[in-house]
Amino acid sequence: MSGPARGFPASEYRVRVARAQARMAARGLAALLLTTEADLRYFSGFLTRFWESPTRPWFLIVPASGDPVAVIPAIGAALMARGWITDIRTWPAPDPEDDGVSLLADALSKIAGKGGRVGLPMGLESHLRMPLADWAGVQARAAVEITDDGGITRALRMVKSEAEIDRIRAACAVAGRAFARVPEIARAGVPLEDLFRRFQCLCLEEGADWVPYLAGAAEQGGYADVISPAGPDPLRRGDVLMLDTGVIRDGYFCDFDRNFSVGPAGDAVRTAHAALIDATQEAAEAAAPGRTAAELFGVLHAALSRHGTPGAGRLGHGLGMQLTEGLSLIPGDRTVLAPGMVITLEPGLSLGPGRLMVHEENIVIRETGAEFLSPPAGREIVTLEG
Amino acid sequence: MSGPARGFPASEYRVRVARAQARMAARGLAALLLTTEADLRYFSGFLTRFWESPTRPWFLIVPASGDPVAVIPAIGAALMARGWITDIRTWPAPDPEDDGVSLLADALSKIAGKGGRVGLPMGLESHLRMPLADWAGVQARAAVEITDDGGITRALRMVKSEAEIDRIRAACAVAGRAFARVPEIARAGVPLEDLFRRFQCLCLEEGADWVPYLAGAAEQGGYADVISPAGPDPLRRGDVLMLDTGVIRDGYFCDFDRNFSVGPAGDAVRTAHAALIDATQEAAEAAAPGRTAAELFGVLHAALSRHGTPGAGRLGHGLGMQLTEGLSLIPGDRTVLAPGMVITLEPGLSLGPGRLMVHEENIVIRETGAEFLSPPAGREIVTLEG
Repeated sequence: MSGPARGFPASEYRVRVARAQARMAARGLAALLLTTEADLRYFSGFLTRFWESPTRPWFLIVPASGDPVAVIPAIGAALMARGWITDIRTWPAPDPEDDGVSLLADALSKIAGKGGRVGLPMGLESHLRMPLADWAGVQARAAVEITDDGGITRALRMVKSEAEIDRIRAACAVAGRAFARVPEIARAGVPLEDLFRRFQCLCLEEGADWVPYLAGAAEQGGYADVISPAGPDPLRRGDVLMLDTGVIRDGYFCDFDRNFSVGPAGDAVRTAHAALIDATQEAAEAAAPGRTAAELFGVLHAALSRHGTPGAGRLGHGLGMQLTEGLSLIPGDRTVLAPGMVITLEPGLSLGPGRLMVHEENIVIRETGAEFLSPPAGREIVTLEG
Repeated sequence: MSGPARGFPASEYRVRVARAQARMAARGLAALLLTTEADLRYFSGFLTRFWESPTRPWFLIVPASGDPVAVIPAIGAALMARGWITDIRTWPAPDPEDDGVSLLADALSKIAGKGGRVGLPMGLESHLRMPLADWAGVQARAAVEITDDGGITRALRMVKSEAEIDRIRAACAVAGRAFARVPEIARAGVPLEDLFRRFQCLCLEEGADWVPYLAGAAEQGGYADVISPAGPDPLRRGDVLMLDTGVIRDGYFCDFDRNFSVGPAGDAVRTAHAALIDATQEAAEAAAPGRTAAELFGVLHAALSRHGTPGAGRLGHGLGMQLTEGLSLIPGDRTVLAPGMVITLEPGLSLGPGRLMVHEENIVIRETGAEFLSPPAGREIVTLEG
């Protein structure tokens, strides 16, 4: 259960806000309006699993200068007050008559000023976490101009501080220890749904605060799909088992997977596994500041093509407060890698119709290249009792 | 690990779609557009934890007649095809140039027809799970009229089928068994964050597929807050420990809590606990078809007022595919209780500044009254080794 102390000092948030405000000034924004869990937490530190409830909207306003203002349901006031935010405005949500609409609109009008430009995340991976009817009400009442935020929060969140990297490293270490213990719980005959439960327990035992993500599959010589929940079928000799997990430790994710062979692996599986590890290694060596996400995709794709047929789709992505966030390793993403970016390398190979193998590791970009945050897997696929 | 078989037969979804289509016809809607996990799954059965990734939008179109059409990222095609939906249209997401915008717009135009009215959830608890910039693109390209769906999906989801009630009962049973084992893991000296981990393991051991929600607190003679994650402080004699969990079993939630006294409880805590149980019982007896959510709030509030100061906020809510969904036990919610509605009763009492106790059970409304789905707690607060 070792790891950095919980939470961040106020100074971490002040740096984030100052960076946002510099970008806001460049875009002529009088305020930022944030509505999603990760964006709110990025500036406020407000960490709760209560977002699982869709009932109540939550708002944070980052003004052009000064500290953020929280406009939130009363049920969150005590927790928010434990953090660094001092201007906390609440309403007794849920209120079908006015569920924060007038409180938010009035706060925006005051903070941004009449006609002031309020930036809202509207681009990739964003959404507005409130009812559209209420949003229309806010726009009608607030005397401000709503505009795209230009991806300010998204861009800031893509480059992690050392404190954030420490959290992601701690999450990776938890999952790494859990993966190392999979042979304790997985063997031929164990139903996949039971294995999923036991693996989540291993993650908790090894220090996960909670386990927001586990997907995987077990099929003969490769699997069809990497996003499915578990079914009742037992593991069989000849299955390739893949477990892909994102555990939370102090608010930050890891996101990597491991493949296992139930019983001895055939040549195709062994070769594919080694090829995936080699491609990951090659990409990690290429992942230096100044290169683009598209170029890194190219390195992975070329390495995979030398060994067989690359799996479809993106070959990696950013991670941090969310399981996936920020850049994508796809041909169309020109994001330039920068020190502090934490990304996954996620090469996949097709082993025939409906038979895929996907490997995944987590790295952070440093001035001098990539540093692994997940404990890199070996070339030889781990064999389970079959 | 007993419980109903996994998933639903296609007939369950056909009934849901037919009911939606009857309401759509009454509102003159040519199609419904759904974008959130629960709304999509309600009509498609598409169950994956991959929604944890915010990167990709997912769409389901329910036409005025015929089966729903899935417009989804290619990564989900294999899993969607395992269910009852046959018209599955995919694009290679994420695609920064056109992330499903033209595919969705063209599908809407074709299905709803030129000028056809497309209903979108815009009311309470809804949000549009896609970037606003892309939504503007869809609206510009699709030759349809977007309008509020009038809460069709929300209203349908509020009344559960027997198959859904079976799932919620199974989830409640899991959490009930885990709560019964809390004395095995909780005693003075155990850090709350370790207790949270161990409790999640108990839920998994008892049959949870995953544990999306756990909040709680442990403070002297009552707690300040019911939505916080755990900190490192150990339990102390005199603490009231509250654990509130929502576990998933086959895609459905329970949502209830239990209070414990670390060492012998003082009179105030014992009396408050008994009062909370009595208020719950009184509300369950009053929870009959035809009464409103507001009336049930009134029953709980009056019962609590006879014993002390009711906690602020709502005193219960619907649950099902989400931890909280549908009606709220608040003075302003005139929803009429109907057979098949599954709700929580969640009375709270204030025991002084920053000292709250909240109790919660889950019931289903039947023709003849309420049936408990959670195993009701006794009046005597359970005591842990202190």
